[in-house]
Amino acid sequence: MNSYVVIMAGGSGERFWPLSRMRKPKQLLALTSSSMMIEEAIDRISPLIPHERILIITSEVLQQPLIDALPGIPSENVIAEPAKRNTAPCLALACSVIRAREAGNDALMAVLTADHFIGNADAFRADVSRALTFASTYDALVTIGIPPTRPETGYGYIHVGEPTVVPGVSHVVEFKEKPDVATALDYVRSGRYVWNSGMFFWRTEALRAAMMSVLPEVGNAIDGLTDDLATQNAQHMSAVFHALPDISIDYGVMERSHNVHVVPATFPWDDVGSWDALERMRPLDATQNVVDGVVTVVDTEGSIIVNAHGSAHTVTTVGLRDTVVVVTPDATMVCPKDRAQDVKRIVTELRTKDRHDIL
Amino acid sequence: MNSYVVIMAGGSGERFWPLSRMRKPKQLLALTSSSMMIEEAIDRISPLIPHERILIITSEVLQQPLIDALPGIPSENVIAEPAKRNTAPCLALACSVIRAREAGNDALMAVLTADHFIGNADAFRADVSRALTFASTYDALVTIGIPPTRPETGYGYIHVGEPTVVPGVSHVVEFKEKPDVATALDYVRSGRYVWNSGMFFWRTEALRAAMMSVLPEVGNAIDGLTDDLATQNAQHMSAVFHALPDISIDYGVMERSHNVHVVPATFPWDDVGSWDALERMRPLDATQNVVDGVVTVVDTEGSIIVNAHGSAHTVTTVGLRDTVVVVTPDATMVCPKDRAQDVKRIVTELRTKDRHDIL
Repeated sequence: MNSYVVIMAGGSGERFWPLSRMRKPKQLLALTSSSMMIEEAIDRISPLIPHERILIITSEVLQQPLIDALPGIPSENVIAEPAKRNTAPCLALACSVIRAREAGNDALMAVLTADHFIGNADAFRADVSRALTFASTYDALVTIGIPPTRPETGYGYIHVGEPTVVPGVSHVVEFKEKPDVATALDYVRSGRYVWNSGMFFWRTEALRAAMMSVLPEVGNAIDGLTDDLATQNAQHMSAVFHALPDISIDYGVMERSHNVHVVPATFPWDDVGSWDALERMRPLDATQNVVDGVVTVVDTEGSIIVNAHGSAHTVTTVGLRDTVVVVTPDATMVCPKDRAQDVKRIVTELRTKDRHDIL
Repeated sequence: MNSYVVIMAGGSGERFWPLSRMRKPKQLLALTSSSMMIEEAIDRISPLIPHERILIITSEVLQQPLIDALPGIPSENVIAEPAKRNTAPCLALACSVIRAREAGNDALMAVLTADHFIGNADAFRADVSRALTFASTYDALVTIGIPPTRPETGYGYIHVGEPTVVPGVSHVVEFKEKPDVATALDYVRSGRYVWNSGMFFWRTEALRAAMMSVLPEVGNAIDGLTDDLATQNAQHMSAVFHALPDISIDYGVMERSHNVHVVPATFPWDDVGSWDALERMRPLDATQNVVDGVVTVVDTEGSIIVNAHGSAHTVTTVGLRDTVVVVTPDATMVCPKDRAQDVKRIVTELRTKDRHDIL
């Protein structure tokens, strides 16, 4: 049975603006190393699964930029969704692509993310192998969960149940939506909850069966999509896809299914959700600053100073504390570090001003 | 008797970096209006004294930039000091220039500043007229003093004595160096002290006599400098000037002289000493920001955001409080508003890094 990787690479480029843009979202940035995040994601999984079976599902606007950015991936593996739906339709499409390519044979499918930091590639591959083997052997829907390090209210949680007979794989009691702070604190203290990482592992036939059972308005489209892809009937495929509902794989399938299992991650993980994440994964200078590009700081602490304007521009600070400064050729952004998640409010404001030239 | 204006326009361009530079110091910037500060200074005094008798004393490096910037001023009126000394030698030179032009006739001399904010030009001209008339009539050394609005420790103070018979002109008891905070508070509370504005009024013969009496190492050079200027002996003039000591007019002449008088200013004044000064003299937006150029602010208060990069660049902020952001094509500077006086530390740091390209 062949194994495929599906990397969901949409993203609107709001949280890392002005470095990220509509046509250059986070996964196309080199935020955590000198490589683009999606390159890192591909390089990380390549020892397990060859490039020919790595599929990138993205939007029409990002398809060509991704093809250009990833010469090692066959261009026909970079697939544009005909419309922006949500993760359940996206993965039904990916499932259909694999089924069309495998001509009816069952296949293994690892759904990975394009824009997260993963601190130990060996541990990651070991966890992925464990999840894939379990999904293959037990016909299960498997996810990787991240042991929480703080009472984060921005993520979904997974209530981890009894261990299975396979080391490192547990039953899932329940998926939980984003909690309030008190509930998040209870979850973290209990030691029985992990963060929902958005990584999933299943056989294509297992996903199809689960979707047809618990989310038939999506699942029932898979056979038709598979046929459309096999016969290259793009027009019909697009029409079918447009009709699918906007629903997530978590809410639409995982929460409603039985035989759902979780592999608690053994690797460091960060969702790199906003500029302040850089200080968790980039080297700091003597006064706890992250500094990138031509930068001169004086008496500056705990700040993130990114000069992406080029070597003909110098970014300087004095007396600064806990501030983010990002400079590009056409836009500058400054905010307190603890307001980094509000950078998208600038993007919203620029959109209302019709400043699409810098979005 | 002809009246002359002498505007001292040196300045190293450190406090308003990165907008100000070595070759473009504060007086060449449009900080307080749409005109350069030195243009404002000239326009303000022009109703009293014609351009032909307005002299600009500056450094060799700024001479040509000032000639270019001020087409209304005869180029021979923009005079470069042969060396960087201090205000006493500078004004001895100015005195000599006027004496050479007036061929031995006495003249009135108003020494004004190039880079201060003056809020009411009519009141300013009334005070200048009062000072010039007093200096002319009573053979006095006259200064304009600024009634203090805060216990500033960065300025010298003047102890105001008894009023003279002329309304608005008082005797000076004593010049005081920059005080500590407690002393400054005492000065302000007493109502008997004004800030030293750096504006002076005297007859050329009165200045020459005072200098020869209390600062002969400078005063004795005036006759020679006058001859050198009359005969265009630039080489000898330069040699004489180089030999003069580095001493201020305040310390070298005003503090040591008798017959010194002060006109307390009746106009709003600000020395525009650093970026934070802008909020005292520029219109504020609804959340107390000073915003200049293409700028988008979200939930930002009490900040000074200057985009001098041009219209192809947008400066944005979110959640910012009391911060200065200045962006130019080749340099960006960010600092807390209450650290604006430390911008010169960035300049010092860049100098140690040999970044003269952006100084």
